[in-house]
Amino acid sequence: MTNLTYIEDLSAKAGQEVTLQGWLYNKRSSGKVRFLILRDGTGLVQSVMVKGKIPEADFAAFDRLTQESSLWVTGLVRAEPRAPGGYELDLTSVHPWHLAQDYPIAPKEHGVDFLLNHRHLWLRSPRQQAILRVRDEIIRACRDFFGERRFILVDTPIFTPTACEGTTTLFETDYFGDRKAYLTQSGQLYLEAAAMALGKVYCFGPTFRAEKSKTRRHLTEFWMLETEIAFAELEDIMALAEALICAIIQRVLATRVKELTALERPLGPLEAIQPPFPRLSYTAALERLAAGGHQVPWGEDLGAPEESFLSESFDRPVLIHRYPKNCKAFYMKPDPGDPRTVLCVDVLAPEGVGEIVGGSQREDDLEALLERLEEHHLPREPLEWYLDLRRYGSVPHSGFGLGLERLVAWICGLHHVREAIPFPRLMDRLAP
Amino acid sequence: MTNLTYIEDLSAKAGQEVTLQGWLYNKRSSGKVRFLILRDGTGLVQSVMVKGKIPEADFAAFDRLTQESSLWVTGLVRAEPRAPGGYELDLTSVHPWHLAQDYPIAPKEHGVDFLLNHRHLWLRSPRQQAILRVRDEIIRACRDFFGERRFILVDTPIFTPTACEGTTTLFETDYFGDRKAYLTQSGQLYLEAAAMALGKVYCFGPTFRAEKSKTRRHLTEFWMLETEIAFAELEDIMALAEALICAIIQRVLATRVKELTALERPLGPLEAIQPPFPRLSYTAALERLAAGGHQVPWGEDLGAPEESFLSESFDRPVLIHRYPKNCKAFYMKPDPGDPRTVLCVDVLAPEGVGEIVGGSQREDDLEALLERLEEHHLPREPLEWYLDLRRYGSVPHSGFGLGLERLVAWICGLHHVREAIPFPRLMDRLAP
Repeated sequence: MTNLTYIEDLSAKAGQEVTLQGWLYNKRSSGKVRFLILRDGTGLVQSVMVKGKIPEADFAAFDRLTQESSLWVTGLVRAEPRAPGGYELDLTSVHPWHLAQDYPIAPKEHGVDFLLNHRHLWLRSPRQQAILRVRDEIIRACRDFFGERRFILVDTPIFTPTACEGTTTLFETDYFGDRKAYLTQSGQLYLEAAAMALGKVYCFGPTFRAEKSKTRRHLTEFWMLETEIAFAELEDIMALAEALICAIIQRVLATRVKELTALERPLGPLEAIQPPFPRLSYTAALERLAAGGHQVPWGEDLGAPEESFLSESFDRPVLIHRYPKNCKAFYMKPDPGDPRTVLCVDVLAPEGVGEIVGGSQREDDLEALLERLEEHHLPREPLEWYLDLRRYGSVPHSGFGLGLERLVAWICGLHHVREAIPFPRLMDRLAP
Repeated sequence: MTNLTYIEDLSAKAGQEVTLQGWLYNKRSSGKVRFLILRDGTGLVQSVMVKGKIPEADFAAFDRLTQESSLWVTGLVRAEPRAPGGYELDLTSVHPWHLAQDYPIAPKEHGVDFLLNHRHLWLRSPRQQAILRVRDEIIRACRDFFGERRFILVDTPIFTPTACEGTTTLFETDYFGDRKAYLTQSGQLYLEAAAMALGKVYCFGPTFRAEKSKTRRHLTEFWMLETEIAFAELEDIMALAEALICAIIQRVLATRVKELTALERPLGPLEAIQPPFPRLSYTAALERLAAGGHQVPWGEDLGAPEESFLSESFDRPVLIHRYPKNCKAFYMKPDPGDPRTVLCVDVLAPEGVGEIVGGSQREDDLEALLERLEEHHLPREPLEWYLDLRRYGSVPHSGFGLGLERLVAWICGLHHVREAIPFPRLMDRLAP
């Protein structure tokens, strides 16, 4: 492996002999010339065998090499402006490692069920590789964003002891025979405790929802980035969410245009994502919806059609803030300016994508929080530890969560979130 | 929040008036002078009130301020060589936010059960903050290490469909009424599939073990970093694991000496962690053990006492390679030089810490792998997808896994891994 060259590095090796290891993506033949298109996980390169310029046995290997056979080759790197990566390889030797027999994913079209059943192989397709590389870049952009701003990563637990908001969408497991553990749906409550210790914190891990939903926006297992900041108010986290989204888009545009192009993802809509993002109160959003023919009575939550309409009304993400109290979770702080509403924000991505971020200022007053628990018919005992945060040096604080797969789907231009995660888990899919 | 200064930034503000927000860590009084020691998650600073130089009402607030009360203050930053951070604050105003009543964690000693029951508050202690900051730095060092080397992050699934190595240490959950899902113990098999697509990959997420074990090295939920590389052999991943550990230690020594010092963690043993690490075959390790009075018959696995002995024999991590086949998992490739052994490596950290990394070259031959499955009495059907990786362009490949909490415990000098994770989950602990 030591002297291995990767395809993405060929531009630095023009005129030199290199060794590549990889898999056969495709091949073709033209007279005395044979073309092997190789992939190695970093790119594709066309490699050329000319009869008489390569040992006869190596030339003959062409016939045996099938799609996805593994091989190592040596060759001279030659600039070739017409080649996709700008370089080709003039082969001097070809060594098959292992010949694949009847690789199931032929270049023809397959149904999505077939492809998901072969997810372990489907990942090898250029399209799936491109999505995974964009996903990787987005995750690193998120982590760099918070790291540079000196937020501390605090991994919140997956196992939680109580189903304080009801068990209907929770996965549960037996915990050593004497109790149940529930799989987390959000690290927020724990992150609030950590923010009281460390000031600015974030977490980024898997979360779980046992929702009986088969829409293109639902996974049973998905990754969520969450942040919480002591002394931050709603305005602060609205600005932070805007800066985060811009930083992610800029990073992907700086480093992953090749992949976005492979995905046929138009770049224009991403290049338009610049601050400031439009901001609308819920009440103003209702007016805009009404003008567009969507009548929503004040106090009702926005559904997918309304989110899509708003999302398509702008060329960049729109921040909808101050929803009615009854649409939102118990921990959100009412707006002193209009206590029927809470200090919350949803960020809707453009192009009809809908919600990618949800956040709020948290209720920091113990008595007010106890009232909200009663209104929501939530038991108090399992939340006593959380209430402690309002007993011992309570401070204003705010945070938000960002759903990774919806963000990846938006940036990559995917119709369904199932392609935005390496091994998707859906209501009817748990394998491979 | 906008004009807020953090304590860790005071050195850049000497002579200026700043506003800090935080919590009261401690206070004391001396004649007409009152001292408030504040914390804000980034550090501690001593703040000085002198009667007559601050409004009378603000001066009087001193008496009401209790441990962990929240407040904001303004003051002039003054260099003070005797102060822990090098700076003090001459207060011009003091505004309590919220007064804490009877904060349960007094400066006195508490039992660990009491502290774990109050984990949501215990995180505020300087010691726990220091651990969490080192943990954050270690995680970022790991991710940067792989990102800089252009590995692609591939998040492997938490839900897995089969208990192919038995259910005794697996957590299981009902999956929509028609089947069981099991919580992952390792992403390795999935990562092998991803390596065949992308070449060099890693994952870093929570893993679960329902082990009825109460040792100081076990958690039921812990984080694991795993990597897998196509075309890599055992030697390659031994070198990579060594480079990774050195990079992590160097990073922590470059950025977190303050925290290590707060933890009273001697730096010398960490500074000694330099390449090359000693390497011993299992067979050579047995000889060394025998010379030290530990007789282990060839073929038996090393237990905790043997690992501790070896770990204490060196001033840096030691790589023990080529264990007997029967001690290790089915997917490890036998050593062609001695087929009784497999091409594997365990890295034992010094100071008696024991194993922190386990890795191997993987069996890449379909027939040999099928034989290993039979030897291990493992069912073939649930692993058919994994066997596909040996059917379609199989290549030599290798990888390893690193347990995060053991690494954090070692670097921080902790006796028990329960302090190395924000909200530990143990056999008898699932809350808060």
